[in-house]
Amino acid sequence: MEIKQQMWAIIVAGGSGSRMQAGVPKQFMELCGRPILMHSIARFADEGIRIVVVLPSPQIGYWKELCDRYDFTWPHNMIDGGATRFHSVKNGLSMLPGEGLVAVHDGVRPLVSRQTVTCCFREAAGYGCAVPAVPVVDSVREVSGLTSRMLDRSALRLIQTPQVFDIALLKKAYEQEYTPAFTDDASVFEKAGHAIHLTEGNVENIKITVPNDLMMAEALMRPTMDRDHLSLLPE
Amino acid sequence: MEIKQQMWAIIVAGGSGSRMQAGVPKQFMELCGRPILMHSIARFADEGIRIVVVLPSPQIGYWKELCDRYDFTWPHNMIDGGATRFHSVKNGLSMLPGEGLVAVHDGVRPLVSRQTVTCCFREAAGYGCAVPAVPVVDSVREVSGLTSRMLDRSALRLIQTPQVFDIALLKKAYEQEYTPAFTDDASVFEKAGHAIHLTEGNVENIKITVPNDLMMAEALMRPTMDRDHLSLLPE
Repeated sequence: MEIKQQMWAIIVAGGSGSRMQAGVPKQFMELCGRPILMHSIARFADEGIRIVVVLPSPQIGYWKELCDRYDFTWPHNMIDGGATRFHSVKNGLSMLPGEGLVAVHDGVRPLVSRQTVTCCFREAAGYGCAVPAVPVVDSVREVSGLTSRMLDRSALRLIQTPQVFDIALLKKAYEQEYTPAFTDDASVFEKAGHAIHLTEGNVENIKITVPNDLMMAEALMRPTMDRDHLSLLPE
Repeated sequence: MEIKQQMWAIIVAGGSGSRMQAGVPKQFMELCGRPILMHSIARFADEGIRIVVVLPSPQIGYWKELCDRYDFTWPHNMIDGGATRFHSVKNGLSMLPGEGLVAVHDGVRPLVSRQTVTCCFREAAGYGCAVPAVPVVDSVREVSGLTSRMLDRSALRLIQTPQVFDIALLKKAYEQEYTPAFTDDASVFEKAGHAIHLTEGNVENIKITVPNDLMMAEALMRPTMDRDHLSLLPE
């Protein structure tokens, strides 16, 4: 990737494991031989991007044990998570320099493609931000009380991560007061007055939140693992 | 299922296979040991629902060969498809009696759960229609030219099939002139002046349109196949 600015990734993993019906938080569940979070980190580290991992404070010791056990030696910085995703990202930003580009990525999206990562950084270098999006396959309806109406799905996009931003602009945006409407970083950035530049995501880049997602991720990742342990998808 | 009305399912399979990068139309691709379309049919036939399969006319001979080869003996009616999904469904409706309930289902959704099927019929018996919907996991943006805006995803639902209707009302609705805005049966029914009743779908009920979908479907179906060849999901 030919980007002159310093590149960072904040990988946010705040899950407690309750929706996975498992004792272990979802970011630590094993996928193709190692915890999900290690796959997510590797996608960025592989590209020479510096890593900040945000984890709930009680999980940090366990994470270090896992890194030893799986011989996971990619260098990465660690910081405690906050009460919400917004506060976790804000903590992560506090570790970053004042300039450069930062990707904020869900720790439970291990199937992001190399192409999505490089494309988001490249476009954010020009536009100030880049947010990966994919078309919607199903029909979509908007509910309101007991009624609903069909939306034009051709105008809709499902938004993924990594969402990449100019560090200085994102830090400034995160000085805003928190509201529950901040469901992702793009919404924080947009509220600060910036336009959101959408770019192409990869449809396999699913968020692992329920047990079936893990089965699907395994099916998508497995065929490519033998060839190259870090290359998740043919690109 | 305790439904007093006659129950029908129109299973629409119009795929040509071009998006699957395979010589064979997607509805005929093998999933856990037999063509996708056979799984989809079995989900309904299993519940005592009468079946009409709509296929592009040039594929009907091949389908009959497949039924022989896989020893697929569920009784089902066949009819040629039309120029669009709308016209295919309309052809299917022409084979039905004037009364009862009909499910219209995508042939490439073999993972619909028994619970979704029975729930849609039960609620359609009361409401005149029932359409399965699931929540949206990702953030959603609506694009307009070069800009986009975030939507409140908590109000959005992804719409699946089977969509179940009172046969008399659906036949009447399909007398309307075709417009490209008719992306599913609910949109046709709604345009005819009826309210759409949403019910709970199952998230695994994905539409198989690209090769990765087939891998995911295989991963979701496989664990349940040994136990009972027709029971696709633990319910």
